[in-house]
Amino acid sequence: MLGEVRKAACVAIGDELLAGDYPDSNSGAIAQALAELGIEVERFVVVGDSKENLERTLYDLCARYQVVVCSGGIGPTLDDVTRDAAAAAAGVPLELDAKVLEWLRESYARRNRKMALSNERQAWFPSGAQVMPNAVGTAPGFRVWIDGGMLAVLPGPPHEMRDMLQRELLPWLRSTCGQGPALATQRFYLLGLPESNFSDRAGDWMARGANPLMGVTAHTGILKVTLRGRAESPEGAQALVAARAAEFRERFAAEIYSEDDPRVGVALVRLLASKGRKLALAESCTGGLAAELLTEAAGASQVFQAGWVTYSNEAKSACLGVDPALIVRHGAVSAEVAKAMAQGAAQRSGADVAVAITGVAGPDGGTPEKPVGLVWFGLSVGGELSAVEQRFPPVDRTSIRRYAAHVALDLVRRHVR
Amino acid sequence: MLGEVRKAACVAIGDELLAGDYPDSNSGAIAQALAELGIEVERFVVVGDSKENLERTLYDLCARYQVVVCSGGIGPTLDDVTRDAAAAAAGVPLELDAKVLEWLRESYARRNRKMALSNERQAWFPSGAQVMPNAVGTAPGFRVWIDGGMLAVLPGPPHEMRDMLQRELLPWLRSTCGQGPALATQRFYLLGLPESNFSDRAGDWMARGANPLMGVTAHTGILKVTLRGRAESPEGAQALVAARAAEFRERFAAEIYSEDDPRVGVALVRLLASKGRKLALAESCTGGLAAELLTEAAGASQVFQAGWVTYSNEAKSACLGVDPALIVRHGAVSAEVAKAMAQGAAQRSGADVAVAITGVAGPDGGTPEKPVGLVWFGLSVGGELSAVEQRFPPVDRTSIRRYAAHVALDLVRRHVR
Repeated sequence: MLGEVRKAACVAIGDELLAGDYPDSNSGAIAQALAELGIEVERFVVVGDSKENLERTLYDLCARYQVVVCSGGIGPTLDDVTRDAAAAAAGVPLELDAKVLEWLRESYARRNRKMALSNERQAWFPSGAQVMPNAVGTAPGFRVWIDGGMLAVLPGPPHEMRDMLQRELLPWLRSTCGQGPALATQRFYLLGLPESNFSDRAGDWMARGANPLMGVTAHTGILKVTLRGRAESPEGAQALVAARAAEFRERFAAEIYSEDDPRVGVALVRLLASKGRKLALAESCTGGLAAELLTEAAGASQVFQAGWVTYSNEAKSACLGVDPALIVRHGAVSAEVAKAMAQGAAQRSGADVAVAITGVAGPDGGTPEKPVGLVWFGLSVGGELSAVEQRFPPVDRTSIRRYAAHVALDLVRRHVR
Repeated sequence: MLGEVRKAACVAIGDELLAGDYPDSNSGAIAQALAELGIEVERFVVVGDSKENLERTLYDLCARYQVVVCSGGIGPTLDDVTRDAAAAAAGVPLELDAKVLEWLRESYARRNRKMALSNERQAWFPSGAQVMPNAVGTAPGFRVWIDGGMLAVLPGPPHEMRDMLQRELLPWLRSTCGQGPALATQRFYLLGLPESNFSDRAGDWMARGANPLMGVTAHTGILKVTLRGRAESPEGAQALVAARAAEFRERFAAEIYSEDDPRVGVALVRLLASKGRKLALAESCTGGLAAELLTEAAGASQVFQAGWVTYSNEAKSACLGVDPALIVRHGAVSAEVAKAMAQGAAQRSGADVAVAITGVAGPDGGTPEKPVGLVWFGLSVGGELSAVEQRFPPVDRTSIRRYAAHVALDLVRRHVR
């Protein structure tokens, strides 16, 4: 029998999260970091800027989990209630930390800015809390004990949260808590396979009781597969995962594009650099997204020769030399125009590989012959031209564009690898 | 006194969410839709694909909230446990729905595909549940009563979730539940103002007890401000919000770029179209992101003449005609090169406005004079050239690129409006 894995919960705070202005991405990042310490996050909770509601939530979670990490609600504005709620849940008053106040004043002075009065709120903490300095922003975090559970409070802005997590919270957790049973994780990222086909090909690897446990999720053409092994020792967990991973690599050799980074562009830049190839892009319906995905990689300039966003028919002709007669005869969304775009991009940039994307992203502009979701891809490899058609489900403009950009970059991968 | 607003909770299900593979965006969309019916979502919960954990979560939330809406975990694979957990929480067995099974078989046959065996799982529901058909995918949803609360289960993929929400769940809620006290909401999206300056300028509009209640959040340069008014009647709530909104528009006239759509590019396309202006883009460090933001708008082709992604120095010269000597003398990240890029883009495309972006997105490539975060913007308006410098905090590559793309599009807005 394995010992109990220590359990944790993450809380994200903000009316804007509940209002759907944007999703909580902090809790996922925190959970990933805690997993490496053997602490399993079992639950994320998102609550608004209501002190009472947050106080009750923190109290309940600290009674149930050994570690609770929350992010947000410690900024300078009046809707930042986390300090008050944490103090109330711990049953202690707020106290002004004179050192933090001085630090705040100095850090504003250094940037030649006057400290807004509201920033003073950021120097108050629940009595007895351990302050965690903020190296990249103005809101310090803190740790406080509530009914046996440890509550850590981090800032809401993702880069401040990540910095304080890495610099302050993780080292403290590592030194304070012993290690639980060992976990090992392996991820695979696949393109070009529907989820239900994957499920059938993966078979009983996906059973609920399996160790390693396999999880899969599909998102605009990308399958993310996670293997999680658990054993008494780190070596044991790693061996379990390594054995399954070896079989997995064999079964899905053609579809795996990455084992560490989900970003399609980053994986492709790495592949192109290793092969010494140069790529050019000509985009219509994706409007720059494929280029953007490619340049997410810091080293993209090594392999990315040039990109064109030729959204209008005139731009396709003026910038890429596509014959206007071709567009009139076949339409902008056609094999012929896709190939001409790829050819133009390759010739003008000197790249040896060029891919072009032209399609109907919707919501308007679809016809019975060329419905929303139809996309043509043109490929030029060493001067040789080809074209591929894909029909994506007519979901929404954003998803169709993302699907199409992923497929375009994957076409290059399959040709180059 | 106002009556009690009906309270709800959202649950998102999936190990991949807890693993931080991507954030839960469904709950935010569901909360926005429920708010329009006067149902206030007070809490989001994310749990993994563990039947026991989910069963307990659903049971607890249904005891506390009148409406619980969950998404995910009803796909064909073995890690889809929502059907089982909902049945267990309701204390009823699962039953095969023969009609749904037949529908599943037919929908596969129509697409000339063989139904994978695992898809049969999608035809089982808790006994007594009301099935909600899925018009855009294979997993039907359902509604079931658990201890007085109504649990609605929607699919996880966002486009399927949204379709079933709009087509099935909202009409049903509208016909079944009466209206609670009225809520009215107004949003503003601002660029070019730090959050703490905003807070000082907004003053007591942001007090916790204010009605309308004002919330603000900052994200890569964008401030999202939400006013939420509450009153006995819809007219009363709207009047409260309208009065504050009028004052707000006056105080932040220069910074507001949108009142409905947060997407900077969409707002700019609307503005350019209303003024009959045409835009060209020349991007280096943003690598296509500005073009991508602009073409999120379905009508972008009206105003977007052409875009170049000239990531390398050679591409800047070859594609945009930037004098190589200029790059040698001033460096690629400079006012001179930014202006030359904008000029090249305007001349080659015939657009009357062009904006160019060249900067150090990091993580490498920074120097003491040109640190990570330094970005130069070049602007060509009717042939007249100018340049603007911005120094973003050296957070991370993705945020710097996003900041820079937002600022570039905002520069155009401020010149054109």
